[in-house]
Amino acid sequence: MRFTLKELAEAIGGVVDGDATIEIESINTPAEALSGQITFLSDSRYKKELENTSASAVILREDDRSACPVTALIVSNPYAAYAEVANLLYPTQREIAGIHPTAVVDDSCDIGADVWIGPHCVIGRNVLIDSGCQIGPGCLIQQNAQIGAESVLIGNVAIMHDCVLGKRVLIHPGAVVGSDGFGQANDNGRWIKIPQVGRVIINDDVEIGASTTIDRGSIGDTVVEEGVKLDNLIHIAHNVRVGAHTVMAGQSGIAGSTTIGRNCMIGGQVGISGHLTIADNVTLTGRTTVLQSVKESGVYSSGTPTEPNRQWHKNYTRFKQLDDMAKRIKILEKLVAKLEGKGN
Amino acid sequence: MRFTLKELAEAIGGVVDGDATIEIESINTPAEALSGQITFLSDSRYKKELENTSASAVILREDDRSACPVTALIVSNPYAAYAEVANLLYPTQREIAGIHPTAVVDDSCDIGADVWIGPHCVIGRNVLIDSGCQIGPGCLIQQNAQIGAESVLIGNVAIMHDCVLGKRVLIHPGAVVGSDGFGQANDNGRWIKIPQVGRVIINDDVEIGASTTIDRGSIGDTVVEEGVKLDNLIHIAHNVRVGAHTVMAGQSGIAGSTTIGRNCMIGGQVGISGHLTIADNVTLTGRTTVLQSVKESGVYSSGTPTEPNRQWHKNYTRFKQLDDMAKRIKILEKLVAKLEGKGN
Amino acid sequence: MRFTLKELAEAIGGVVDGDATIEIESINTPAEALSGQITFLSDSRYKKELENTSASAVILREDDRSACPVTALIVSNPYAAYAEVANLLYPTQREIAGIHPTAVVDDSCDIGADVWIGPHCVIGRNVLIDSGCQIGPGCLIQQNAQIGAESVLIGNVAIMHDCVLGKRVLIHPGAVVGSDGFGQANDNGRWIKIPQVGRVIINDDVEIGASTTIDRGSIGDTVVEEGVKLDNLIHIAHNVRVGAHTVMAGQSGIAGSTTIGRNCMIGGQVGISGHLTIADNVTLTGRTTVLQSVKESGVYSSGTPTEPNRQWHKNYTRFKQLDDMAKRIKILEKLVAKLEGKGN
Repeated sequence: MRFTLKELAEAIGGVVDGDATIEIESINTPAEALSGQITFLSDSRYKKELENTSASAVILREDDRSACPVTALIVSNPYAAYAEVANLLYPTQREIAGIHPTAVVDDSCDIGADVWIGPHCVIGRNVLIDSGCQIGPGCLIQQNAQIGAESVLIGNVAIMHDCVLGKRVLIHPGAVVGSDGFGQANDNGRWIKIPQVGRVIINDDVEIGASTTIDRGSIGDTVVEEGVKLDNLIHIAHNVRVGAHTVMAGQSGIAGSTTIGRNCMIGGQVGISGHLTIADNVTLTGRTTVLQSVKESGVYSSGTPTEPNRQWHKNYTRFKQLDDMAKRIKILEKLVAKLEGKGN
Repeated sequence: MRFTLKELAEAIGGVVDGDATIEIESINTPAEALSGQITFLSDSRYKKELENTSASAVILREDDRSACPVTALIVSNPYAAYAEVANLLYPTQREIAGIHPTAVVDDSCDIGADVWIGPHCVIGRNVLIDSGCQIGPGCLIQQNAQIGAESVLIGNVAIMHDCVLGKRVLIHPGAVVGSDGFGQANDNGRWIKIPQVGRVIINDDVEIGASTTIDRGSIGDTVVEEGVKLDNLIHIAHNVRVGAHTVMAGQSGIAGSTTIGRNCMIGGQVGISGHLTIADNVTLTGRTTVLQSVKESGVYSSGTPTEPNRQWHKNYTRFKQLDDMAKRIKILEKLVAKLEGKGN
Repeated sequence: MRFTLKELAEAIGGVVDGDATIEIESINTPAEALSGQITFLSDSRYKKELENTSASAVILREDDRSACPVTALIVSNPYAAYAEVANLLYPTQREIAGIHPTAVVDDSCDIGADVWIGPHCVIGRNVLIDSGCQIGPGCLIQQNAQIGAESVLIGNVAIMHDCVLGKRVLIHPGAVVGSDGFGQANDNGRWIKIPQVGRVIINDDVEIGASTTIDRGSIGDTVVEEGVKLDNLIHIAHNVRVGAHTVMAGQSGIAGSTTIGRNCMIGGQVGISGHLTIADNVTLTGRTTVLQSVKESGVYSSGTPTEPNRQWHKNYTRFKQLDDMAKRIKILEKLVAKLEGKGN
């Protein structure tokens, strides 16, 4: 794809300062961009990187204009504008609609217009696949599942029975939606599996990363609200609700029946216990362990620092004495207060 | 499915207190259950939730009977009874036996009676699939593997060569059983792969969650004993042994050659080092890091609390001084003792 | 396979001390090895295990010869020698070259000599698969990907478009190479996906474990250098570079744009933040959290010990007071110094 700066500016609502007839065909970093490429500056702290750029144009805020030696595309939110420009320059590649002859699609399915079902897919009974969907190779969609319009399953994705996906859902390979929740009842030392009779409901514009697993509800549904973005290898347990526009980085896990608020930012390898509530607009930095509900928005963390192994070992051992140390400090404070009294 | 309370009571060994002719067709929570539904009370602390229930019946302990305004199904272990009732009301859906024409099954395989092999499965040489198995779409079973009777592989499951599954094993999508253990020998800075010549042995009644991986033994086998239940995205390394009836929640990992006892409860995102032994009846709460063997049954934990980021940062930094702090407290104690001596 | 000790010694550059005509057909541990089997001693601390061995021969260092009651194969690095011997005794099983009739291979692909493409594979446009590759069942290789000579994809592996694999790359089931990096730009509370236009470059002799995911670069590539060995369920984010001959154990995760040095050893469940640099020859023990760059080689750790739950709970609570404790110690030191002054 190829656009003039004028076309890009019109498409994203920006202003060109410089030659608006320049043609842009791809994106790159300030340091590596060449002629015909556009780059961006989203954080003023890095404006020095623009000094020697060979990019044809830079997306930036008006305040940073003076740092840019080439034509500028001025916007209020350069990172979002960059995303929009990149989506214009790199449109999603679509396969030609049709059902591949090797796909096994039950006759009872309802397949919308302009749908591609790739090789070796298996689509069960009464599945609804709405218009414009792209179902890549090797996907398994079990009975009664519903896939909303314009959704894309890249390939090797599994959607279990009765689950419901909204519109424009994007799912990467290896992801599993609707596997059984982990429900086991103990009967004298043996575990009896509890049937997981709920579903997974994925709302519009959700993205699900590679090999992320989202379990179906035990009773009632697991829900991922609109605009949520999940990275790879995340575990969402049964009856979790993830609030709209929350993002979650790789390998995080949410235990059963926890509710995550809207517009949260959850770092990588975070773990959240079950039956908790996380407020809206909460940021959890990477590796945070959450064992209690978080009731107010804000940034939260946990964990201890990386240290050279020997030094760590000493501090690690002392952790076991922490309560003891606290008590000894209190005793010392009393003794010293007494001694001070005497000294007067 | 639909049962009278009398039928359910007989099936699970409970006593109906109320109208035993009521017909039950599904389960629900106390708050959401309607006529025709049964719910349960497993923890007396929540008995208030029964007050306004519209359920037709409640499974509970005799002690909680008075809290229940509707017909009761009285049992000694309501959660296990609920599991049994739910299994009656929601029987596993079985596909009709047969080998789908798109499945690639080697002629040398031994396929039992009443087995379903779904579309696009690939079954290697000399595989044994015992009677009643359901092998869902896209499963890969390599040569010489054995699948015990009535086992269910939901779909997109990979069972590597020579691995052995017991009876009634249930495996969710994306799980991999028998991938190579992580064995590498260093030869002057380069790694030489060590062939992993052991197997994975999965005993009866094991459940394996979505995208969980269980590596084959290096020499000798990796063993998962009967009744073990593994959640999603768990990593079981080579030559691990997981004791019977142990449960493990999502994203936990067990490093090589560690032995986990029987009837353990291992929370989510737990990590256990290699070459350790965990006793029977050990509970590890979520996110616990285990670097040494656990020799006695009990509940164990590790980790530090979630805090607002600023407060955390201060405490996090102090962790590096913990050993120093401990020494300074000791010195202070000596000095204060000396001062007290002088003061006398 | 079956070799005399003389043949093995010649192949790996060792010296037989004893009967070099003994035939070896398999490997085992010192305790379980029987006649016809070879075992090894890589750590002198375990030499007692050789006392009662029934192995036909033992691979060991000259220094440990006296501890071995049977024929010895003397080498300088027994563990590496064991790996080499094991590779001779257990050669990788290869399928006969050819494209299975159920595989869907685009006409534009360039398939080398002696390549096996298994059942139900899907190979997109302009894919290059070099000579000697084994592409197991159910693999998905998207357009323009390149697979280097003698590489092995066991089965159910996904290689996304334009990614490049070197020679002798080995990938286990469920792994995903080239899924989209996690790039989202916030636009007034909604997230706009940023097209991930980089690739994944995997160099020669890399091994990738089951269900490990490696994301493609945002701009520029994600790179895994030669000889890297990755265990299962690892997450490598966009634009990460992993240095040559680094090993990484299961469930570790590396956030975006971080560079890992050469010859590092990264334990299981380690988490490394984004935009960091880890020096060469760094060892991170299991479960370490790395939030800052590591500039010098060495062994690093983080975390706190496992404790009985009650004891942990006390120390866990005290962690929130750590900064306060440190300040109180300082105050005490000043007060005591003052008291000592007065006492003089």
